[in-house]
Amino acid sequence: MIVVMKPGATEGQIQHVVDLVREYGLKDHIIHGTDRTVVACIGDKRAVDKGAIETAPMVECLVPILAPYKMASAEVKKTRTEIQIGPDGFGIGGRKVGVIAGPCAVESRDQILQAARAVKAAGGIGLRGGAYKPRTSPYSFQGLGLEGLKLLAEARDQTSLAIVTEVVGVEQVDDVAEYADVLQVGARNMQNYPLLEAVGHVQKPILLKRGMSASLEEFMLAAEYILNAGNEHVILCERGIRTFEKYVRNTLALAAVAELNNKTHLPVIVDPSHGTGHAHLVPAMCRAAVAAGADGLLIE
Amino acid sequence: MIVVMKPGATEGQIQHVVDLVREYGLKDHIIHGTDRTVVACIGDKRAVDKGAIETAPMVECLVPILAPYKMASAEVKKTRTEIQIGPDGFGIGGRKVGVIAGPCAVESRDQILQAARAVKAAGGIGLRGGAYKPRTSPYSFQGLGLEGLKLLAEARDQTSLAIVTEVVGVEQVDDVAEYADVLQVGARNMQNYPLLEAVGHVQKPILLKRGMSASLEEFMLAAEYILNAGNEHVILCERGIRTFEKYVRNTLALAAVAELNNKTHLPVIVDPSHGTGHAHLVPAMCRAAVAAGADGLLIE
Amino acid sequence: MIVVMKPGATEGQIQHVVDLVREYGLKDHIIHGTDRTVVACIGDKRAVDKGAIETAPMVECLVPILAPYKMASAEVKKTRTEIQIGPDGFGIGGRKVGVIAGPCAVESRDQILQAARAVKAAGGIGLRGGAYKPRTSPYSFQGLGLEGLKLLAEARDQTSLAIVTEVVGVEQVDDVAEYADVLQVGARNMQNYPLLEAVGHVQKPILLKRGMSASLEEFMLAAEYILNAGNEHVILCERGIRTFEKYVRNTLALAAVAELNNKTHLPVIVDPSHGTGHAHLVPAMCRAAVAAGADGLLIE
Amino acid sequence: MIVVMKPGATEGQIQHVVDLVREYGLKDHIIHGTDRTVVACIGDKRAVDKGAIETAPMVECLVPILAPYKMASAEVKKTRTEIQIGPDGFGIGGRKVGVIAGPCAVESRDQILQAARAVKAAGGIGLRGGAYKPRTSPYSFQGLGLEGLKLLAEARDQTSLAIVTEVVGVEQVDDVAEYADVLQVGARNMQNYPLLEAVGHVQKPILLKRGMSASLEEFMLAAEYILNAGNEHVILCERGIRTFEKYVRNTLALAAVAELNNKTHLPVIVDPSHGTGHAHLVPAMCRAAVAAGADGLLIE
Repeated sequence: MIVVMKPGATEGQIQHVVDLVREYGLKDHIIHGTDRTVVACIGDKRAVDKGAIETAPMVECLVPILAPYKMASAEVKKTRTEIQIGPDGFGIGGRKVGVIAGPCAVESRDQILQAARAVKAAGGIGLRGGAYKPRTSPYSFQGLGLEGLKLLAEARDQTSLAIVTEVVGVEQVDDVAEYADVLQVGARNMQNYPLLEAVGHVQKPILLKRGMSASLEEFMLAAEYILNAGNEHVILCERGIRTFEKYVRNTLALAAVAELNNKTHLPVIVDPSHGTGHAHLVPAMCRAAVAAGADGLLIE
Repeated sequence: MIVVMKPGATEGQIQHVVDLVREYGLKDHIIHGTDRTVVACIGDKRAVDKGAIETAPMVECLVPILAPYKMASAEVKKTRTEIQIGPDGFGIGGRKVGVIAGPCAVESRDQILQAARAVKAAGGIGLRGGAYKPRTSPYSFQGLGLEGLKLLAEARDQTSLAIVTEVVGVEQVDDVAEYADVLQVGARNMQNYPLLEAVGHVQKPILLKRGMSASLEEFMLAAEYILNAGNEHVILCERGIRTFEKYVRNTLALAAVAELNNKTHLPVIVDPSHGTGHAHLVPAMCRAAVAAGADGLLIE
Repeated sequence: MIVVMKPGATEGQIQHVVDLVREYGLKDHIIHGTDRTVVACIGDKRAVDKGAIETAPMVECLVPILAPYKMASAEVKKTRTEIQIGPDGFGIGGRKVGVIAGPCAVESRDQILQAARAVKAAGGIGLRGGAYKPRTSPYSFQGLGLEGLKLLAEARDQTSLAIVTEVVGVEQVDDVAEYADVLQVGARNMQNYPLLEAVGHVQKPILLKRGMSASLEEFMLAAEYILNAGNEHVILCERGIRTFEKYVRNTLALAAVAELNNKTHLPVIVDPSHGTGHAHLVPAMCRAAVAAGADGLLIE
Repeated sequence: MIVVMKPGATEGQIQHVVDLVREYGLKDHIIHGTDRTVVACIGDKRAVDKGAIETAPMVECLVPILAPYKMASAEVKKTRTEIQIGPDGFGIGGRKVGVIAGPCAVESRDQILQAARAVKAAGGIGLRGGAYKPRTSPYSFQGLGLEGLKLLAEARDQTSLAIVTEVVGVEQVDDVAEYADVLQVGARNMQNYPLLEAVGHVQKPILLKRGMSASLEEFMLAAEYILNAGNEHVILCERGIRTFEKYVRNTLALAAVAELNNKTHLPVIVDPSHGTGHAHLVPAMCRAAVAAGADGLLIE
């Protein structure tokens, strides 16, 4: 961490910063530049509450050097993580690209069994489908709930596909963990910390979707919550970010896939359906996602 | 709602859309343009699942005409809502601008009581302070919890300030509702629907912060969840949106205040501290927020 | 175009809109909905100045139905355009993906000839390099100018690569057109209309880069300026958009490639170097761009 | 400037960076942290081409400490600049807020003279109106050109209002400078460097609009181009940025006004008409802009 002082900072003000830095167990290193003085801080600053330094008199800004996540970092764990999912133990993050597909919501027994058979026939390895639906409007269909989970489990029994379904609140974690193979945390809940901790205590893989305006650092810190709570089986999912673009529902940021492969050992999949919002763009984006290095695809 | 057909849509394909429209209880109205045919749908479409129409053959897009929220809409309730908060019953949304201030987190008895006295002396009407903190990093201080709530209640007893504090999960709603005067739903939880429903069952005012990439429509739909669950006391809070700008933590969208005053009867306050992330910008943004029509300020 | 009236619009106010619509030579069609009245306008509205209608009393908003570009549209010209570039006449938009590579700026004879040989050896079909550089800072190197153009021409003579170089102002169009095979209009100049018209009068292919916050519609309208001025040889180039993301210089929007292939007959190439700003992300983004349907790559 | 090395950088790789730093005339300062080594560079780095350092082996990133602009900086010139405009010499940046108003485009003699009288009657100090219009579509009205300039000059003669009008290309600079009191550089041309230099050679005030996705740093560097070319009379204009928001044409970033007042000595005005795109939001945003510290308003 580098503390940049404003021009005109006095020796006393610089010393005050140095004292704060030492108080946090860090070593300081003062550099007098032509226009400004900076204080470099040496040591692990992740646990330091930077507020006190940031608001000290004549401090212009703080420049972090280290990433704030640890367990998710490729610097800490150098081998890539492969996560087995479903009855057949398909390895997400392994050599093959796994395709998980299915409808938005489970609506009926016929619908979901038919979808499961179609996914299986097309070579898919997982079935997605919402039993609990997070809906922007309170007037929209909210999902079949436990009934939907049971239908998904029946679809797995018939096809041996891995069941991937969303958990919307802490109170449903146990039920979803009982019936599903992979618990999905949706984009809107990426920073729902009680939920991240709750799924961190489950012993099933978690599919964590990137929030629609989350930075990669925030995304990896959300994964860190789950890892830190004890669950090492986290699959990251890029599903598009919110930008000024209007021809798509979200802008699919495929460079994020390449950068995540660089920064973290966790597997990364892509959801081109939510990532674009238009069926006619999905095939091209599936190809592009795989070419960018995705370990799997989540298709609606 | 207007359904726009692609050029070259056949009579049969147009009829298929018309059939779907009628199935949903809407009246149809076909207009043949020079390049395209559109089907105007008359009636209340808020409950219609548009997926079936959107994915029908040769449909280019759907253009909504009506806003999807009702109870939050200024078209439905024409008088502005005023919400009394705290022991003194200050009316947010009334003639005066109410200032709610306080530290980020409750850290100790001394700290919060001192802060409360300072807020009171400066003419504030509410005290904010986090007992439960939603933290981007699992390694940051997560708040004092119940202990913090009790300290806040003590501060109210001493100053008669209204206590405003965040509720991070459904499981804390009862505790926070017992001690606080206003329950805050944070920006990260704006689309945490179980939480919105839970605070909708409480009989205390809710301060709902806009998510950092939420559209105004999504913001009002989040309020609609609370209103629809039975709690009419919702205060909206603009706290900055995520954009490409880097000199601020968020871009404070003050036109949102003016537009919300236009679209909804609910009171609107502004948080310029999170909205900018820099103390030196807060005074100017407080003045600007009030000038833009804010009913109150939330200051850290 | 659909004109949406506010609730409570009187018959006279609706008639006023109808009169305006007819004045512009369009046919009107009034639809009385449950909450609102809308006026559908039939005919080609691209030449209509919508301001008068938009600001008429009790008009809520205008909803366009037709795209505002014509010559660039795939609806108007149904066969895809292939553009021959350079001495060898490689066809951009044809069956093969063409790679254009080279340094940011032409710095010296040795540098550019060496770069050209490397590009040729690697199978590239074009050489890029800036003779005139648009620089964010007035203190940065602004390019070798005419001297740089001559060095590029020499590199073409030695390698038969097509020369692609940027034209920054109207006053350089003639010089650049004399020496280069393809004139590049940079992202910052995408809406520099005098420049677009000037290159529209040249009989060489134009490589038009998308502005960093341009919508696809604005991008195609910029192409329309060139086409409308008489030059049909426009190559579109997606080079990343500005978003909240910080790990990249720009967010490479590859769905734009798929959507442009859908909306326009013009060839589309991708610049993953500016699109990400980091060398380590370029190989994965090259693969992804081709998979998304790009007709070529522009690599720094 | 701080050069951050990747973990595992060898002594030789660090020395290579140090050599580059010294080559640019800077002093180096190596700091060995727990996980990473950083090289602090002391001296004025604004003229350094950072590419060579950025792409050196095992360099992770460069962190700039100094702002890249000088002449526009409030650190360099500590007194605020006041710019006299028009026949009456109203001082923008002085104690009073100046209002410049007028139509989008000059359409006829009657229209502009009537508008001028209305602006004057309402207490305005300047008349805006486009003689040359930068239009997104080639099919829109492009302005009256020289004829429009003459009508504006006539309006000044009748009202003594300062004339503010846009210059779209280098070739019109002389004409516009002859008739107008203030030359406006539009948002789309904020990084049109030949144009910035051309208006830098004029001896009349320049109104520079922020590009719709320009960072404040890029905005000030655009001003720096004009200052550096010899024209010290630059008025900055915030006119809204492009974000995901849809209820406005642009998001008016009023914190930018406060931050510019902090970073630069140049006066700052606000355009709430383009900044929102909706007449009903303009009055509230005018009040908010003044409250945020704007030196003037530009109203359509």
